[in-house]
Formats: sequence, structure tokens, C-alpha cells
Amino acid sequence: MPEPESPLLVVGSVAFDTIKTPHGKQERILGGSATYFSLAASYFTDVRVIAVVGEDFTGAHEAVMTDRGVDTRGIQRAKGKTFHWAGEYGDNLNEAKTHLTELNVFEDFKPQVPAEFADSGFLFLANIDPVLQAQVRSSMPGVQLTGGDTMNFWIGGKRRELQETLKLVDILLVNDGEAKMLAEDNSLPRAAHKIRAMGPKAVVIKHGEYGATIFFADNKHPFRAPALPLDEVRDPTGAGDSFAGGFMGYIASQGKLDREVLKRAMFYGGVMGSFAVERFGTERLQSLTREEIEARFELFRELTHLE
Amino acid sequence: MPEPESPLLVVGSVAFDTIKTPHGKQERILGGSATYFSLAASYFTDVRVIAVVGEDFTGAHEAVMTDRGVDTRGIQRAKGKTFHWAGEYGDNLNEAKTHLTELNVFEDFKPQVPAEFADSGFLFLANIDPVLQAQVRSSMPGVQLTGGDTMNFWIGGKRRELQETLKLVDILLVNDGEAKMLAEDNSLPRAAHKIRAMGPKAVVIKHGEYGATIFFADNKHPFRAPALPLDEVRDPTGAGDSFAGGFMGYIASQGKLDREVLKRAMFYGGVMGSFAVERFGTERLQSLTREEIEARFELFRELTHLE
Repeated sequence: MPEPESPLLVVGSVAFDTIKTPHGKQERILGGSATYFSLAASYFTDVRVIAVVGEDFTGAHEAVMTDRGVDTRGIQRAKGKTFHWAGEYGDNLNEAKTHLTELNVFEDFKPQVPAEFADSGFLFLANIDPVLQAQVRSSMPGVQLTGGDTMNFWIGGKRRELQETLKLVDILLVNDGEAKMLAEDNSLPRAAHKIRAMGPKAVVIKHGEYGATIFFADNKHPFRAPALPLDEVRDPTGAGDSFAGGFMGYIASQGKLDREVLKRAMFYGGVMGSFAVERFGTERLQSLTREEIEARFELFRELTHLE
Repeated sequence: MPEPESPLLVVGSVAFDTIKTPHGKQERILGGSATYFSLAASYFTDVRVIAVVGEDFTGAHEAVMTDRGVDTRGIQRAKGKTFHWAGEYGDNLNEAKTHLTELNVFEDFKPQVPAEFADSGFLFLANIDPVLQAQVRSSMPGVQLTGGDTMNFWIGGKRRELQETLKLVDILLVNDGEAKMLAEDNSLPRAAHKIRAMGPKAVVIKHGEYGATIFFADNKHPFRAPALPLDEVRDPTGAGDSFAGGFMGYIASQGKLDREVLKRAMFYGGVMGSFAVERFGTERLQSLTREEIEARFELFRELTHLE
């Protein structure tokens, strides 16, 4: 394990999202996996971002991250427009219908690790092409702990490359459907077992409104963190990336990586996910306090713990 | 609240099930909501059953219940055959495809409460016609706490009658789909809120492999119990009824009905559900020990509790 407070680097997308939910519609608001992740993680540790944006990405957009202390020197500027996603959530808010995916500058994204980022002890490979994920990991020999995400698109389209990348990932975070598809097994515990055989020492499977389960090396005693039963979910976009940010951010803030740290990291992941969905886009993640986070952590404990 | 150890009465079905799962097929094995419920509850308190069976119900079948100390004097014998259900679970085991429903003697079931059962302090109205549920409850003025179950068939077909019954139910246990359908709301916390407005003081919503959540009177701080991530689910039949049996059985064994008792009851519900699905039919519920139950209770705690 790296030193506590060794910086956490994330490589992923910075994007503009056009989002429609039963609670309203917002056009081209700041989003992307690296954005949600870094904002969520910024409440726990020093965070650095590698991503690419276009000419429509302004200083005001960047300030959303830098105001939270996020080091954005790894955000490349390219000619053209920033990645744009447009989607809509129906009444149950569990699944988005994609209306539009304009990759724009993201299509030719070649992640570059700035020299100043080489001392990052923790790395999170957000959901990008597994070939790029592996390149970033390989270019950072000093990294001690690597978390990773992926999605059905890569599982289906680049399974071989993804399996090479998984050998470099210590903790994989995926949702139910991705875990089942990756493992080709409909039982989540068995799927976790099979995924760990591909490389990751631990697997976190996210169940949306039902929380998330971490399967450890022995596969005997997993641990389950709840999600908060919220009356109103305004915008589910970024919930998974915010979970990952809270999870990795808390781990990076600790000096050790034992079972108890991972369990608490699961709770902090759920906490940050629950905040993210209360408002559109990253709004709620921009203005939290550590006190609000700790209060919600206690609510999660109350939600699950016997006396 | 009634005295602790005041007997728990369940009215529901005793049936023969023909079940096919990826793990095998069994013909006409003993099942039914009242059977699973009473076996699960029998590890906690004195249990009595009201149901109807046909001429094909043998002494050996009855002994499955009486061997566990269940009082079967409320099981009526009718001319004809016992209720028979045949169904199949696909690979993901979450949903059964019904091949056959032969109501047989169950079609004319008129629950009768034997005089010896009139002093039952706890009542569980398993999933039967809400009109019959209400009749049983009304004929037992001494009952102090009533739990109830229902299903989509009644929510769709007898909503008005069901709403009358819900006024007599203290704790309703339903699954996600039933809660959303009953409340006509896709948010589970809001659905729980609306169901409580129909009568029940508390609502338990069961999430299958993700556990279950109880919503209390204030609706501010629900409580969530896990389900056990099992590598092998052999037969999911009866999981919900076994949950209800553990839940109500534990409550009946306690002298009070505070938040902590309900929380522990949620854990015991999950524990009994997790045992039920390990074997076909009621097999696993027939031969448990209280020590095995307590060991699994501790496993559930380990699965969810921070240090």
C-alpha cells in the first residue's frame, strides 16, 4: 500500500450531458466519469484527472473541479467539441435511454500522464477503452493500488483486451449486468468468483438502489453496503462514478487496506452516490461538507446496523 | 402487544408443488405458503395453521409440520385433491414460470378458526383472497398483532376488498413489484409511504437476492436487512413465506415490539429465507437447529456491519 494521502489519479471522460428525467431537463451540463469521480473523491484525498476536452470547455467548467482542489493539469485540450451524451430516464430511473452519443474529441483520446502525476499512489481507470486503461496503468509503475470500471460495450466488443487489462486491476467495480456478462454467469457470487480469477483481488458489484456488495479474496464472507432509499431521485447520472470516487477516495485517505477499510469505503461509496442523485449533474457534489458526508455515513449505519 | 410466547396463527395454503429448476425437478412435494411459514416460524415460537387439504394429503405430509411442533388442528380435510402448483425457474431463478395451477379443494376454502386457536396473540394472513383474510382477522378479536401478505392477482382483481383488509393489517410484507403496483408508484420509499396510509403501521418490502427493507411509522429511517449471496440457489420456492415465518416467529417470541425487535426480525426473516432456498421444497426447513440459525444470523451481521 502507498502512503496515506498519496494522490489518487483518475483517467476517464469529461463530457457534456443533456439529461431528461421525470424531474426536468438540463442541456449540456458538465458530466463524465472522471468529473463525477474526482468531485466525489475530492472530499477524501488529493485527486488528479487525465481526460480530454474540446474548445467548448471553458474556464468556468474547469473551475468546478479546481474549486474542489482537483488537479486538472492532465486534462488535454483538443480541436473540436467535447464528448456529448444525451439521454433520458423513464419513470423508474434505473435505466437511461440514450438519444445521442457524440464522441467528438474523445474518439481520439490518447491519455498522457504528465510528469507531475507520476508519483500518484492510487489509480482509477474509469470506463474507457480497455486498451487505453492498460496503457495508463503500464506507464505508472509507482502505482500501488488500481481500481477499474468497464461496461457492456467493452465486454462485448473487446473482451480479449479487457481481460488483459483486468490482470492489472486490483479492484474492479461493475454493476450487476456487467458482472454477469463478463463472467457469463447469472449468479452474482459465482460471477464475482470468476472475475477474481481474471485478475482483480476484489470485486465490487453495484446493485443500484439496493446498494453494492464487495467480494473479497476468500469469497466466503462478502460485505454489503446499502443505498439510501430516497423518495426523490432527480438524476441518476453519475451515481456509479460517484460511488467509485467515494470508495477509492476513502481508501486513498487511509494508511492501510484491510477488510475494515474496504467495508467503510463501501459505505462512503454509497454515501457519495446518494448525494449525486439528489440534484441534476454534479451540482450536489460541488458544495458538500465533510460534516454532511459523515452525517449521511451515520444514516447508512443506522439503516443497516443492529444495536 | 400480546404476551411473549403467545401462539402465532397462520392462515394460508398447504399445497403440492411440482418444481423444475436448473438443479433438478421434483414432483408434488409438500409446499404452500402456510407450510413454509409455519416451519420457519416453528424455530421461534408456538405455531398454529389454518388451511385446507384434500384426500391425497397423508399422515406423512402432516408429520412434516407436527414433527416441528406445529399445531395442525386447523387444517380442514375436504373431498377432492390438494391445491397443486407446477412451475419452472429459469437460469436467473428470480421468477417462476407457472405451468399449472390446480386450485382443487382450495377453491372453496372457508377458513374456520378452531375454538382452541382463539387465544392466538399473533396472526399472519398469508397470500389468500383478501375477503377471507379479513374474515379471519375479524373473527379473532384477541389478536394483538397481524401480519399480512398479498400478490398482484389480488391487487389487480380485488383492490377494493384488499384495501379493506389492509385496514386490519399491522405489518404488510410484499415484494418490490407488489408494492409498486399496490401504491401505483415506482419509487419504493414513496410506495411504502402510500401503503402505510392504507392501514399498515409498517411495511416490509422484499427485494429477493438484495434483501428487504422495513419502513416504519415515521418513514424517515427505514432499515434494510441483507439476503445471503448464495453460490447455489436450488429452489427459490417459499423464500418469501419463509422470510415471513422467521420475521413473525421472532416477533412473537419477544415481549415487546420496538424498533430493535423489528430490525432483528428482519434479519431472522432473511436467515430463514436463505435456508429455504438451499434445498428443494421445505427440506432444509425441516431439520435446522437453533444453533445453525444463530450462526447464520451472525453471518448476516458480518455481511453488513462495520466494526
